[in-house]
Amino acid sequence: MKGENLSSLCTPALVLDVDKVKRNAQRMIENCQNLGVQLRPHMKTHKTLECADIMTGGSRRCIVVSTLAEACFYADNGFDDILYAYPLPFDKVERCAVLSERLDLFQIVLDHPHALDALKKRPLREGRLWHVWLKLDCGNGRAGVLHSEPEALRLAQAIVETKGVELTGVYAHCGNSYNSRGVEQIQAVAQETTDLTLQFMEKLKAAGITCKSSIGSTPSCSHPVKDMGKLSEVHPGNYVFYDVQQSVIGSCSLKEVAVKVLTRVIGHCPHRNQLLIDCGWCGLSLDGAGKLPTGYAVIEGHPDLKLLSMTQEHGRVEPISGPLDYSKFPLGSLLTLIPYHSCATAVMHPVYHVHSEGRLLGKWTPTRGW
Amino acid sequence: MKGENLSSLCTPALVLDVDKVKRNAQRMIENCQNLGVQLRPHMKTHKTLECADIMTGGSRRCIVVSTLAEACFYADNGFDDILYAYPLPFDKVERCAVLSERLDLFQIVLDHPHALDALKKRPLREGRLWHVWLKLDCGNGRAGVLHSEPEALRLAQAIVETKGVELTGVYAHCGNSYNSRGVEQIQAVAQETTDLTLQFMEKLKAAGITCKSSIGSTPSCSHPVKDMGKLSEVHPGNYVFYDVQQSVIGSCSLKEVAVKVLTRVIGHCPHRNQLLIDCGWCGLSLDGAGKLPTGYAVIEGHPDLKLLSMTQEHGRVEPISGPLDYSKFPLGSLLTLIPYHSCATAVMHPVYHVHSEGRLLGKWTPTRGW
Repeated sequence: MKGENLSSLCTPALVLDVDKVKRNAQRMIENCQNLGVQLRPHMKTHKTLECADIMTGGSRRCIVVSTLAEACFYADNGFDDILYAYPLPFDKVERCAVLSERLDLFQIVLDHPHALDALKKRPLREGRLWHVWLKLDCGNGRAGVLHSEPEALRLAQAIVETKGVELTGVYAHCGNSYNSRGVEQIQAVAQETTDLTLQFMEKLKAAGITCKSSIGSTPSCSHPVKDMGKLSEVHPGNYVFYDVQQSVIGSCSLKEVAVKVLTRVIGHCPHRNQLLIDCGWCGLSLDGAGKLPTGYAVIEGHPDLKLLSMTQEHGRVEPISGPLDYSKFPLGSLLTLIPYHSCATAVMHPVYHVHSEGRLLGKWTPTRGW
Repeated sequence: MKGENLSSLCTPALVLDVDKVKRNAQRMIENCQNLGVQLRPHMKTHKTLECADIMTGGSRRCIVVSTLAEACFYADNGFDDILYAYPLPFDKVERCAVLSERLDLFQIVLDHPHALDALKKRPLREGRLWHVWLKLDCGNGRAGVLHSEPEALRLAQAIVETKGVELTGVYAHCGNSYNSRGVEQIQAVAQETTDLTLQFMEKLKAAGITCKSSIGSTPSCSHPVKDMGKLSEVHPGNYVFYDVQQSVIGSCSLKEVAVKVLTRVIGHCPHRNQLLIDCGWCGLSLDGAGKLPTGYAVIEGHPDLKLLSMTQEHGRVEPISGPLDYSKFPLGSLLTLIPYHSCATAVMHPVYHVHSEGRLLGKWTPTRGW
């Protein structure tokens, strides 16, 4: 298939524009260099070796993962300095211990004293330390100790005082930046998360504790504020692909989206004024329901079309208004879907087809599971 | 892991109760024997060899698939008499031809004269025939020629008159049974689809054409009407797992659902009156949004809890009313999610953990892709 045109692919197919992937990755590297902050890219969106190489500039060091399956996959393939950015799951302590003993630097995250207790019960061999980041909730409202709670400082102190455990850093995810529209709102969230994190670092310092700090999300790191340079690290991930959601937030333009789903017309339904396409939720995911005037995706080059609904392997497409001109969409013709949420779409595909200017270069295979 | 308790699994994990799988499969076999109709089970929900063996009673014959990847997977593993129940995709004609030449009986579906033209351009070797089912839309509103349109009969006649092509049957999916609530409504849809299909068979007969007929959906085949015995085949699939959606429709009781997702509590958020669990949409899918008072799933044994929202690897759980009693849900404790739509949940998992009465028996690995 190498060298062939995208139209040679059987559909549905996830296609990646490698030039856009590289440009998106390079821009983030430059953003971080300009800020003077270490970039620790997140792997959760793509879960491939090839994309990890591009995001780390080939160093295979300093990454974040969302699952232990990703951590093992990257460790097995020569990556190191891996941060498993998930509230330490008690069922996976032994697997985390094995990685900690095997890698130069495997790092975990916790946000509760019970998790610290779990580490105490499993001291690492050969005097190795558990490298622990304290997860702080700076307004995102998911995991983490609330920045404003006294427990946050107490837990940091408890980590520092625990034998065999090192407080490596403070970790905050500004997922609340996803509610922003436009650069100004994105930067307000970035500023707030940065301020709250730095204020917490001051509290730590006053208690005699020094460690790293990290915040991240694709919107905030795509339009960073200057004060983010005072942090040790940032950890965005989605930026390497981007998606319609990021363009709506204002992180990127639609042209920068590197991932698409190719689909073909498989049915004409003039009695319903609809087309059928061969991409259902199995090829796109249901993420984005009700969010876009064009339905579950943007159909490239056809702003007048809406992906109305999907079943497992079928999609129903209709015009936003007026009658459909079927002569423009013969059976078998290709349409290109720009996904609402690339993380959700990528996870539906066992393989990604990589191209440059429409010519196929090869396939990337992501890891899956937990 | 074999023989161990379910609680030994790392979460999230898809777990299958093999006894329920077998009972669900056996009941459908008996339904069809009682009706005197051939069961052709659909593989799209599970996509595994083991489950296909159970559904076919070990015959490895007479199945339906939703993707060509499934067709190849089953063909490679000794299955035959495979019906690829998808409007013939023009990009996959060659792959369909290869399967038609290789298997005793590979069958395809079409609903447009252009698809017939595509078959004419690729005659099969050694005098083999393309085995074609005509897809009829009997009110489902997805693929198929509308039963009421004169084109339906014309297309059937064109298939019969085409050299190298055989009209094997007429195929209708009564997916509109998913709008039913209760047995009476389900049976009304089953009766209507059966009547419309049989009326079309009469039209064919009057034109001198005889072939098979098939309708199917899990609701209609779980509560079949007597006239379905006049059809040649039925082709349900989801019944082997069932799910919350099927229990809401009235196809099954919640106790008959064979598939669950195990998850663990990974966070306490008293300031939001929430728990965090380690199952996000990556382990459950987003199917069912807004459909249930308990959110994206039913949490087994906790009708008072709601799976409010999910991100990739996190779920937020809150009480339907009142304050959460955290002492009942310590960090690390297990919760069991009954999925809204098992087809959508199963596709998120690279492996299914199979148990009998809570003791692990092994793993089943589904096929993926297209």
